[in-house]
Amino acid sequence: MNNNNADEQFALLGLSLPPAPGPLGVYKPCLIEGKFLYLSGHGPVQDDKTLIIGRIGKDLDIEQGKLAARQVGLTMLSTIRTHVGELHKIKRVIKILGMVNCVPEFERHPYVINGCSELFAAIWGEENGVGVRSAVGFGSLPDNIPVEIEAIFELQ
Amino acid sequence: MNNNNADEQFALLGLSLPPAPGPLGVYKPCLIEGKFLYLSGHGPVQDDKTLIIGRIGKDLDIEQGKLAARQVGLTMLSTIRTHVGELHKIKRVIKILGMVNCVPEFERHPYVINGCSELFAAIWGEENGVGVRSAVGFGSLPDNIPVEIEAIFELQ
Amino acid sequence: MNNNNADEQFALLGLSLPPAPGPLGVYKPCLIEGKFLYLSGHGPVQDDKTLIIGRIGKDLDIEQGKLAARQVGLTMLSTIRTHVGELHKIKRVIKILGMVNCVPEFERHPYVINGCSELFAAIWGEENGVGVRSAVGFGSLPDNIPVEIEAIFELQ
Repeated sequence: MNNNNADEQFALLGLSLPPAPGPLGVYKPCLIEGKFLYLSGHGPVQDDKTLIIGRIGKDLDIEQGKLAARQVGLTMLSTIRTHVGELHKIKRVIKILGMVNCVPEFERHPYVINGCSELFAAIWGEENGVGVRSAVGFGSLPDNIPVEIEAIFELQ
Repeated sequence: MNNNNADEQFALLGLSLPPAPGPLGVYKPCLIEGKFLYLSGHGPVQDDKTLIIGRIGKDLDIEQGKLAARQVGLTMLSTIRTHVGELHKIKRVIKILGMVNCVPEFERHPYVINGCSELFAAIWGEENGVGVRSAVGFGSLPDNIPVEIEAIFELQ
Repeated sequence: MNNNNADEQFALLGLSLPPAPGPLGVYKPCLIEGKFLYLSGHGPVQDDKTLIIGRIGKDLDIEQGKLAARQVGLTMLSTIRTHVGELHKIKRVIKILGMVNCVPEFERHPYVINGCSELFAAIWGEENGVGVRSAVGFGSLPDNIPVEIEAIFELQ
């Protein structure tokens, strides 16, 4: 898949993007430095602006966690569209930190964060849509969201 | 506010900087690569070199947590001064990771980390002193400090 | 120590490298961008491909944790060798995030992560093998591994 197809691919997937979130504190949701686009930690914003809430292994099961990670990915796409316009302006994913809010016994963080990574692979392709990653369990997340993800992208 | 005012702004705020901490392990507190300055995770060092200690939601309340994050910010400024001299050599904040040591029920990590971010905004201005950020809850932090923050800055 | 000695130093240490792990999800273990090499979060892979498992302070003691961090370092070296060939192609360590899976009362994360950092210092020297670092406690890690580490290196 060619990068120039990212927006076409997005349209084919029939995805609905939530509104791009404003900052919840003193930070920028998005910052461009040279050919890199940095995204702040994003949560799973829904179309009605509410957040998906709950801890995985307690309030949500693993499949709900993976869907929440996908929703985080959609929220990140919304921020990208708001700040740089078209998705094909992203050349590739460099790095993702997938933060999972789960019980201490939870062991399948990579499966959960795949919900976001598979979305990015569908948009930008398996080569450029996939970067390095850590997918790990946190003690707690803001507003008790199940997943938060920050990322660094390379621009075209 | 102009970046060249950072040191003047610092003086106007009447801030007292704690001593710059040495490494607690095999790492550098600060590293420069090209036009970027990387800071290791910093804790809340006080003027007498002791650390603020305690978990937020158990030993410390949210306002004490925010003050601890501000003290982390002052400790980071101390490291910057020690390594590059004047604060105006920083062009802008690129990225901050705000690590909060709190009970699993805690939900207001962004409010806590604002203690550092508001300090940086006061020093370098609301445009250059504010970058992307994640502010999230960890399971534990070294020496049971309430807040640890790492950062990437762009140099002039 | 000169960087060009990294592979010689490696041989002198008589180290055995585990097999380089494939991705456990939708990510790349290693990505090169310009003169930087990014490594995804790595776990402690052993020579027989199994992982060291357990939480520090519950299943493993602090010395076992430090050995696990060293094993993570060896696993990272294996990935580097697989992707760029010789270890001397690394100029220096820029940044490490040391993620420790431990009980909430644990306070000595830097000591644990030194297991990896001391290995890197032995390979690339105390100046180039040591970068900035955060070593902190997570709520849980994939497969209940005790340590996961991600890193950014500068290439020659």
